[in-house]
Amino acid sequence: MKFIVKVRLKKGILDPQGKTVNQALHHLGYPQIQDVRIGKFIEVEIEESDPQKARRILEEASQRLLANPVIEDYDIQPEESEP
Amino acid sequence: MKFIVKVRLKKGILDPQGKTVNQALHHLGYPQIQDVRIGKFIEVEIEESDPQKARRILEEASQRLLANPVIEDYDIQPEESEP
Repeated sequence: MKFIVKVRLKKGILDPQGKTVNQALHHLGYPQIQDVRIGKFIEVEIEESDPQKARRILEEASQRLLANPVIEDYDIQPEESEP
Repeated sequence: MKFIVKVRLKKGILDPQGKTVNQALHHLGYPQIQDVRIGKFIEVEIEESDPQKARRILEEASQRLLANPVIEDYDIQPEESEP
């Protein structure tokens, strides 16, 4: 099964990387762009036929390695739900 | 309007960061995880009421700054389509 884990900074946490990209876009001539926030998404192929078990494994892996739960939120979705 | 730009390595391009995460997950005790690929997603708030124009701006910004079109694919979606 394939899952996507999306990791993004929690609301209210400053995103200096996003701010820098935002400024760079202004310099390149896109003043319409108001705000940029950058997250990551992790495509995981997992050998586990039970979707609930697979999700539990990924939940644990996200807590332990993929995300920093202090400042980041994560969201786990089977890839089918992505267009 | 809010858009999400997803940037990921093209198929066939090696992803050393994903490989490292994959190995780390094995060491942490998740042998079920077969493959990991890491991309980024960029949430952009844009002041432009015409969705087609907004998309054109983001298309250009992706080509010029957000993605490296030589090795990365990108995909632009209005945020409404994300759950």
